[in-house]
Amino acid sequence: MKKLINKVEDIVPEALRGLGAASHDIVKIDATNNVVLRAGGPKKGKVALVSGGGSGHEPLHGGFVGLGMLDAACAGAVFTSPVPDQMEAATRAVDGGAGVLHIVKNYTGDILNFQMAAELVAGQIEVATVVTNDDVAVQDSLYTAGRRGVGGTVLVEKIAGAHAEAGASLAEVTATAVKVNANVRSMGLALTSCIVPAAGVPTFQLGGDEVEVGIGIHGEPGRRREKLASVDDMAEWLVGPVVDDLKLKRGDSVLAFVNGMGGSPLIELYVAYDSVARILAGKGISIARSLVGSYITSLEMAGFSVTLLRLDDELLRLWDAPVHTAALRWGV
Amino acid sequence: MKKLINKVEDIVPEALRGLGAASHDIVKIDATNNVVLRAGGPKKGKVALVSGGGSGHEPLHGGFVGLGMLDAACAGAVFTSPVPDQMEAATRAVDGGAGVLHIVKNYTGDILNFQMAAELVAGQIEVATVVTNDDVAVQDSLYTAGRRGVGGTVLVEKIAGAHAEAGASLAEVTATAVKVNANVRSMGLALTSCIVPAAGVPTFQLGGDEVEVGIGIHGEPGRRREKLASVDDMAEWLVGPVVDDLKLKRGDSVLAFVNGMGGSPLIELYVAYDSVARILAGKGISIARSLVGSYITSLEMAGFSVTLLRLDDELLRLWDAPVHTAALRWGV
Repeated sequence: MKKLINKVEDIVPEALRGLGAASHDIVKIDATNNVVLRAGGPKKGKVALVSGGGSGHEPLHGGFVGLGMLDAACAGAVFTSPVPDQMEAATRAVDGGAGVLHIVKNYTGDILNFQMAAELVAGQIEVATVVTNDDVAVQDSLYTAGRRGVGGTVLVEKIAGAHAEAGASLAEVTATAVKVNANVRSMGLALTSCIVPAAGVPTFQLGGDEVEVGIGIHGEPGRRREKLASVDDMAEWLVGPVVDDLKLKRGDSVLAFVNGMGGSPLIELYVAYDSVARILAGKGISIARSLVGSYITSLEMAGFSVTLLRLDDELLRLWDAPVHTAALRWGV
Repeated sequence: MKKLINKVEDIVPEALRGLGAASHDIVKIDATNNVVLRAGGPKKGKVALVSGGGSGHEPLHGGFVGLGMLDAACAGAVFTSPVPDQMEAATRAVDGGAGVLHIVKNYTGDILNFQMAAELVAGQIEVATVVTNDDVAVQDSLYTAGRRGVGGTVLVEKIAGAHAEAGASLAEVTATAVKVNANVRSMGLALTSCIVPAAGVPTFQLGGDEVEVGIGIHGEPGRRREKLASVDDMAEWLVGPVVDDLKLKRGDSVLAFVNGMGGSPLIELYVAYDSVARILAGKGISIARSLVGSYITSLEMAGFSVTLLRLDDELLRLWDAPVHTAALRWGV
């Protein structure tokens, strides 16, 4: 296992400390709880957004804490849900009196622990919860009942975060997050496995000419294995199911997000984006906004995922609103 | 070779087309010449900045075209210098009457070809040239006389670009670029090789417990091989020579740039940044600005480099000035 680390058990606190040092104008780190908090403390009267999950998906979620996006992110061990105490601490730290939205990727552990945290603050802080489940690859899976929450989570966090920043109520921000989740779908594939540090060996074995299609962000099995193909073909394997599931039709307008799994270089992601753009153009679907880069990753896994969000004027306006986080920044 | 590509010979044009499609508000692609141009054409009276080099280092250079940074980037084949015709086309396309600065990483092919391009426009467009050579790892190397240009190039492009955007003359912008290059040093290491697509096999062989210290961005040999160590130790191997060469002393203020080589995930880069920050704190050197991410890469190579720039008020102000490119954006 070749990684840029010290001790395996120190990876998460050290990465958080690195993020905190590099982005001290944006975030502060609660090192006791492994929580990334927006610098400057809770904003009075603003709905606060809390997310979190296992580490190893960076920049998700800590890199999305800041103006116009999250107020806190709870970091679990690599590929392991944070515990309720972390979520409780985050919820208490960010509450500005207007309520807190928990954005939870659909994994059994995350759901249970966020639910327990909400119960721990019940009667003191109003908490709403949105579960993201945008992965069309599989119905139930290794760690989920129902679909997994993947790339669409980034878009939920950005767009709901913008609505909260604009002063919307907890019910309104929650409705926006639900709306984004209802209009977003994703699917990914892996060219290589990743190595969970505590395990020290690849999560799964993949032949030198094999691709896992419909991979989960923890290396969970996908729909099927295929032989390595051109990226045009591989992009079809992902775009097709996403377009079908979203029932996108000619004339629809989308945000197209081509995400790297962590080990694929940017030149390949731009080649993949070119494929995705040509496939969508062929279907008469127009790309109004795009995002290309490694934003929700699986450690050093090579591969990519495609996320499409059906846009309307409201979602477009909230997407374009200013954001100032370590990983996404514009308008500021 | 597992990559997200179609035909090997189409990687560069398809990646450029992908960049152009995803960032059409920022750049336009000259597909005939494989040149990335700032959208909106040349700015009358503004000094224009042109850089370029072999592909495979993305987002360098095309991802740095836009407001406050480059006006054009010439993309060669992977790890191969662009040809003079590309640089000539770029220079002619961006000239706004105030002259053009060529920012050239110190590799023999790039130097010769940019020089020929400058000769092709001599008498018509005033061209100045700055050669970056910030890599302290080796003196001469496989592709260079003198030191290689690496991570410092990103900072030269940002800071000189800000000066040009502010209306400085060609002589002033050139002086700023020279000043940044004189105050910046870098060194990197690799945990794995990369695979040049046209070759199809790893550029070099590295044992499962070996690290190449002082690696070049094309996989050129470094100073030495070491056994894999903690990232604290590995960061010392890089920070020490950089601090020594820059003659940094207690009380100095720097921009610290921890760069991923392409295949290392962000969680590891933040762990590495934490190491670098602690080492610098121990030496009494303060980090006034930082950059963490994969900005000058070597395809899917795993590893990282450390770049330090000695800051003064002028450089700080120009670093903070607005920038709007695909890969770096703030203030806009």
